[in-house]
Amino acid sequence: MTTSRTVPEKFSGFGVDKAENWNKARLVRFDPKPLMPYDITIKVIACAVCGSDCHTVTGNFGPINRDDLVVGHEIVGEVIEVGPEVTKHKLGDVVAIGAQSDSCGECNRCKSNNEQYCQKGTVGTYNSLSKKCGGYITQGGYASHVRVNSHFAARVPANLDVHHAAPLLCGGLTVYSPIVRHAGYDLKEKVIGIVGIGGLGSMAIQIAKALGAKEVVAFSRSSSKKEDAFKMGASKYIATKEDTEWANSNLDTFDMILNCASFGKGVDYDSFIRTLKLGGKYVTVSAPPADESITIAPFNLLIGGGIIAGSGIGSMKEADELLKLYADNNLAPWIEKVPISEEGVHKVMNRISVGDVRYRFVLTDFDQAFDSKW
Amino acid sequence: MTTSRTVPEKFSGFGVDKAENWNKARLVRFDPKPLMPYDITIKVIACAVCGSDCHTVTGNFGPINRDDLVVGHEIVGEVIEVGPEVTKHKLGDVVAIGAQSDSCGECNRCKSNNEQYCQKGTVGTYNSLSKKCGGYITQGGYASHVRVNSHFAARVPANLDVHHAAPLLCGGLTVYSPIVRHAGYDLKEKVIGIVGIGGLGSMAIQIAKALGAKEVVAFSRSSSKKEDAFKMGASKYIATKEDTEWANSNLDTFDMILNCASFGKGVDYDSFIRTLKLGGKYVTVSAPPADESITIAPFNLLIGGGIIAGSGIGSMKEADELLKLYADNNLAPWIEKVPISEEGVHKVMNRISVGDVRYRFVLTDFDQAFDSKW
Repeated sequence: MTTSRTVPEKFSGFGVDKAENWNKARLVRFDPKPLMPYDITIKVIACAVCGSDCHTVTGNFGPINRDDLVVGHEIVGEVIEVGPEVTKHKLGDVVAIGAQSDSCGECNRCKSNNEQYCQKGTVGTYNSLSKKCGGYITQGGYASHVRVNSHFAARVPANLDVHHAAPLLCGGLTVYSPIVRHAGYDLKEKVIGIVGIGGLGSMAIQIAKALGAKEVVAFSRSSSKKEDAFKMGASKYIATKEDTEWANSNLDTFDMILNCASFGKGVDYDSFIRTLKLGGKYVTVSAPPADESITIAPFNLLIGGGIIAGSGIGSMKEADELLKLYADNNLAPWIEKVPISEEGVHKVMNRISVGDVRYRFVLTDFDQAFDSKW
Repeated sequence: MTTSRTVPEKFSGFGVDKAENWNKARLVRFDPKPLMPYDITIKVIACAVCGSDCHTVTGNFGPINRDDLVVGHEIVGEVIEVGPEVTKHKLGDVVAIGAQSDSCGECNRCKSNNEQYCQKGTVGTYNSLSKKCGGYITQGGYASHVRVNSHFAARVPANLDVHHAAPLLCGGLTVYSPIVRHAGYDLKEKVIGIVGIGGLGSMAIQIAKALGAKEVVAFSRSSSKKEDAFKMGASKYIATKEDTEWANSNLDTFDMILNCASFGKGVDYDSFIRTLKLGGKYVTVSAPPADESITIAPFNLLIGGGIIAGSGIGSMKEADELLKLYADNNLAPWIEKVPISEEGVHKVMNRISVGDVRYRFVLTDFDQAFDSKW
């Protein structure tokens, strides 16, 4: 039996009609996704802003699939409706949702805590076709409410601030998963490099430090983020444009280098690969525009036995682990709060598009934006 | 105390003076590398021909470092001299030498059966600077004799034909090492793809089959090698230019794909990556010309958690294992024998340069080429 508090017939959000208007989101009302038996509906409390939101509305990732597209996939909210088959959550729970809202649930990958790599394709939290739900195109968290498969909502620990939990569900998880999968849960013997000190990189430094890394080396093009990186937990900082000898002076150093840069072009993959230890891994989680490629010289892979890997978001098991890691270690992502409104959404999009963000925006005050108007 | 049979003051070989004359090797005499205490000298019995030999003399891999360069690094011969510190071999042993002839012997990599990735740089069997030996530029096995660090000579099992042992030491080892390192020694649950059915690929099929692979899938551009591939041990054959849907019909299939193609350009890395299982690895051992690069779309790595790795030759521990695997399983690389002479060397170079080799040339009859003349 479906149980609910007041769920409006239509949801509200800040939506974009086409790529030309990427920074002109407007208040829209839309039909929610049909409630499936395993779904929950949450009333949104906070939504952090991922670089992918900007890539999506500008068309960098491909077409915009509806003319009122609401983005946002780092969402925290209160459960106000649970479908009849939901056992994971109950009304009143505070939960967090990331970039994935559904999957087949039946394949080997879904059944082995690898649902982010579902063999039948994942359903993104927004702009994604949900075949199971009548071909609905999903809507994200810059909205009054969000409805998703309950499996894809993590319980937020009571001692973790809701505004701090939000960016962990996509940005944090995206860096946590490759760190624990490729370097392990105990990093005390490991030297970890983090490339790109933005939203993802800042959380990656915190996570590597919290997992006990012997050394966390922050890579950025300039020195501008040096002080911040040390505060986040880095033990060493390399400004690649200022120290042209950085690769030669760091050969055979890294167990893992995690590329968090939001672009592909201009990243000197060959130099990074040269600094790996034997069997060390260069893992990229960055999702640059679809037309950007990685170019590497095979010789560099041969002479050092180098390994390059990619990683996409993370599993819900890992999301739970990550929220606990932040709660247990009293950690907080570095965020800037912006009350949600048309102006607020325009501002964060404009600033993200020029890289003016230290280190994650979190949209707040959803009650004020929606409840008073609908 | 150095012990020896008759070691000539000068060695003889078929050498190239410059890249323009890549297919005009001439009989040359040259000073051997100074005998170090850990060195052995062998009298060559057979030398197989690696694609790298051709890449080197044509200048594809960089400059030719001496004007009488003798290539060849798949060498079998009889030990006729042992330096005073040699314990691994004795006079009369039949040994095989591959692409590496020395390393520092002291770094962590050298001490952990990873001497092929020596931190201080390896010494190639030919065209390579041997700093320890007075800056000598090394000479290869299209020669009467070869002198190397005894560590880099493997003992040839008595029940393995010397002509079959030769190509195992570079070509065979280059594919054996990544298979056992990335897929393991027991492949009975594994589906292994082999890309490029040339010298390396043919041995890779034999090795994967001998290690018990559940399935060995041979990839080639056309069907021309289908029959051979099945005889070598493949259980399936995919002609990528003829079956344009091959990637779509083989998604989520491979535990490991080993790229043995001798070129970088034209290899559709993105399609191969799409056919990997989650956590599956695409490993490249091909050494294309220095100016060829790999280009991949990061999205493909992210959505499948794909892993790309490189591997360079193998360790001497692995060389011993490989010779034993061939001897124990009564296997033989597919070879074509050519008596060594100026004409013979010209012929194999010309045929290799146009890919006319099924699947490895082995130069033979060294006694006749050298003993009668010097």
